[in-house]
Amino acid sequence: MRSSPMLAAMLAATIAASAALAAPPRETRIPDPAFATAAQLRERALQDRTSWQVVESLTTEIGPRLAGSEADARAVRWAEAKFKSLGYDKVWLQPVSFPKWVRRSEHGAVLGDHAQPLHLTALGGSPGGTVEGDIVRFPDLAALEAAPAGSLAGKIAFVDYTMQRARDGNGYGPASRIRSRGPSAAIRAGAIGYVMRSAGTEQHRYPHTGVTRFDEGLTPIPSAALALPDAEQLARLLSRGRPIRIRIALDCGWDGTASSFNVIGEITGSDRRLREEVVVIGGHLDSWDLGTGAVDDGAGVAITMGAGHLIAQLPKAQRPPRTIRVIAFANEEQGLYGGKAYAEQHKAAVARHQLVAESDFGAGRIYGFNTNAAPHAQAAAARIADALKPLGIEAMAKGGPGPDVGPIASEGAAWAWLGQDGSDYFDLHHTPDDTLDKIDPAALAQNTAAYAVFAYLAASAEGGFGSAPKPAPAKP
Amino acid sequence: MRSSPMLAAMLAATIAASAALAAPPRETRIPDPAFATAAQLRERALQDRTSWQVVESLTTEIGPRLAGSEADARAVRWAEAKFKSLGYDKVWLQPVSFPKWVRRSEHGAVLGDHAQPLHLTALGGSPGGTVEGDIVRFPDLAALEAAPAGSLAGKIAFVDYTMQRARDGNGYGPASRIRSRGPSAAIRAGAIGYVMRSAGTEQHRYPHTGVTRFDEGLTPIPSAALALPDAEQLARLLSRGRPIRIRIALDCGWDGTASSFNVIGEITGSDRRLREEVVVIGGHLDSWDLGTGAVDDGAGVAITMGAGHLIAQLPKAQRPPRTIRVIAFANEEQGLYGGKAYAEQHKAAVARHQLVAESDFGAGRIYGFNTNAAPHAQAAAARIADALKPLGIEAMAKGGPGPDVGPIASEGAAWAWLGQDGSDYFDLHHTPDDTLDKIDPAALAQNTAAYAVFAYLAASAEGGFGSAPKPAPAKP
Repeated sequence: MRSSPMLAAMLAATIAASAALAAPPRETRIPDPAFATAAQLRERALQDRTSWQVVESLTTEIGPRLAGSEADARAVRWAEAKFKSLGYDKVWLQPVSFPKWVRRSEHGAVLGDHAQPLHLTALGGSPGGTVEGDIVRFPDLAALEAAPAGSLAGKIAFVDYTMQRARDGNGYGPASRIRSRGPSAAIRAGAIGYVMRSAGTEQHRYPHTGVTRFDEGLTPIPSAALALPDAEQLARLLSRGRPIRIRIALDCGWDGTASSFNVIGEITGSDRRLREEVVVIGGHLDSWDLGTGAVDDGAGVAITMGAGHLIAQLPKAQRPPRTIRVIAFANEEQGLYGGKAYAEQHKAAVARHQLVAESDFGAGRIYGFNTNAAPHAQAAAARIADALKPLGIEAMAKGGPGPDVGPIASEGAAWAWLGQDGSDYFDLHHTPDDTLDKIDPAALAQNTAAYAVFAYLAASAEGGFGSAPKPAPAKP
Repeated sequence: MRSSPMLAAMLAATIAASAALAAPPRETRIPDPAFATAAQLRERALQDRTSWQVVESLTTEIGPRLAGSEADARAVRWAEAKFKSLGYDKVWLQPVSFPKWVRRSEHGAVLGDHAQPLHLTALGGSPGGTVEGDIVRFPDLAALEAAPAGSLAGKIAFVDYTMQRARDGNGYGPASRIRSRGPSAAIRAGAIGYVMRSAGTEQHRYPHTGVTRFDEGLTPIPSAALALPDAEQLARLLSRGRPIRIRIALDCGWDGTASSFNVIGEITGSDRRLREEVVVIGGHLDSWDLGTGAVDDGAGVAITMGAGHLIAQLPKAQRPPRTIRVIAFANEEQGLYGGKAYAEQHKAAVARHQLVAESDFGAGRIYGFNTNAAPHAQAAAARIADALKPLGIEAMAKGGPGPDVGPIASEGAAWAWLGQDGSDYFDLHHTPDDTLDKIDPAALAQNTAAYAVFAYLAASAEGGFGSAPKPAPAKP
């Protein structure tokens, strides 16, 4: 480790900051009447149909809404109108720009003696193009990454990794890395195309899309995900011991820049001094194009819109002192564009973010609660957890902020985690089967109840949960 | 009713025939040693992997095999080779001709304010074409049939009937009538296109294809089935009270005449005097093009090929006196062409058909047994039922011959029914999801055991089950 005057100055500044933090802040408390109101909200939410009506409306009237598409623009207008009709006090749009990716058609086939169609879908970000080649199977990403340069010349790489089912979705990490990093590894080994067993947990005949990216300096290749039965079919064909040649024909690709909007609705806080402080909840408005984006993430938009609506309906005397800000984020799917834009615009105000939480893991019941609240707010957080218990929710030392509130959390906003049961989430995620009928209205209402209780109590606290700007990381 | 000399002559002939039948035939018996062998077959089949290997091979190496396609021709060669490799004594092909229908592409979409894709598939026999029109929803076929002529001019008829799930598949009758009769009813009312909620019982995002037909004198219109979530989407959109316009774009249609083959394998009977008599079992070799034809009807081919194989493996002394004839029928899906050709060729020999049975209802466990055996063979049939009991199979007064043995049964062949649990069959039937992974190998083995026991005992009986040419129906 090298010593320098700059480093010494930074250390001194850090110590000074620590000393300032060392003065113990007042313990955050939530007034007792807030718990009575939260209990009312909880019971009302369990009977309320608003969230169901919202997700029914979004998935039916708009349907799929790929970021940057005409339907995405319709969804923005829909969200703006919906916030207004649900009694939000203030509704506004934050512009968000991003590269536009489009999918027109996609076909796959086994060629030769076993000619038959393959059910595949382009990964988001894949270039178009038609390639034919023998497939080379790898059981996982590490095996592909170990393939020597040039060893896949003229071939199509096939990663056949099986995602594991889990309530908290922890199988998605390794499976989605195969989607994000596999194509670049294939290119490095010389491959002309890339296919993977979908990052999914069912055995139905649709592939799971999702975004990929290509490392700098590499020439992208057509990259697609196979339905699970189709990946198994290729593995069985390969087990015969002879080369298996396939065709991937994708018509898709980048097409300039698009803009969309974070659509934001607020229930203004009742306390003039505190109403600049916000509890942020939300979901993302965009979806992949294959399904109608019911569990990903119409549900999240509906749960949080519905929770805010219930708070908006309270008598004035029961309104929380702080503002509830519900955000329908733009373009989560292709790179958290909405969440990053929000953080960029609001990072100077990070300390005024009381708590942030996002619903983006389907519509299963919430079973766990956690927050990274500062020590002086731990008791208040524990009381929120108690208020969620009647919904079957337990405090747990796990979780994190949702994807779109991740960037503002990285700026220092305190986050909460309302952990949904995602056992079935990856049966539907990023597939044509992500449709309204997969949502259980009772489970949806439980989610809305949890978000209403959480947002109301967080907004009603005397004191904060520890949001503060993070010191910029040291640059050498 | 008119009286005539011809009618009087026919009545006299009928009375004479009745008198001949009145001489009571000898009671059919199955020798005791046959039951010991049947029990051995049963236990061996439960451990045997042949049927699994057969269906794995067919669905993997051939895949979808629409009648008349290149893959159908490959399937014929596959079946011929498979019979030979499984030790069948005699393998032969019976040519079958039929009109050839092809599917090239299909697209559907909601147009206008709620623009979004629809998941649909052309019904077999539909013409190609692109039509756009407002949809008119009917809850069932009767409602569509009641639509006045001209009332659907320029419109697309939409029948939104929900098929019911049942172990014996009895929901398929009314649902498939909507597929077969709906398009003609729509044309009579003036419609330019036809869509229906698929005849299926799941909630996944694929439509169920299947053949339709157009009544004489009508000009066919593009006709398609919607995935269940898409049908529900249309119903929800219509519930908003405004017209909903959709596009159906089908590239498909009739394309000349094709030929294929019934592929037939025989285990020759051990008794020179009886080996001309046959027990017929089988399934159909063709499939729809969307899936790989695993449960419809790779399973049936595999079960019956595997059952015959086990009988072929018996020591010579245990071979049954009659021949076991296993048939992989051609083009069942588009109109029982293989079954009809078989009956046409063999109707003069109908009395030499000891019993006929087909496996064409998936790969679920067999739960019921029945036969239309003549009275003198009822006791023998009951003993076959007893031999099936250890497999969890009960004698029941229901069922009938399978589709492809229906025509020879109509000529007078006695039939048996080995009733499979089809509770899940219509989740998969005629969809892309009809793939190998949906078959439970243990259930498949139970089927093979049942067919081996049944075929062996039927072929071993002393006496027949009542097969006899049916008098031609009186023509006025």
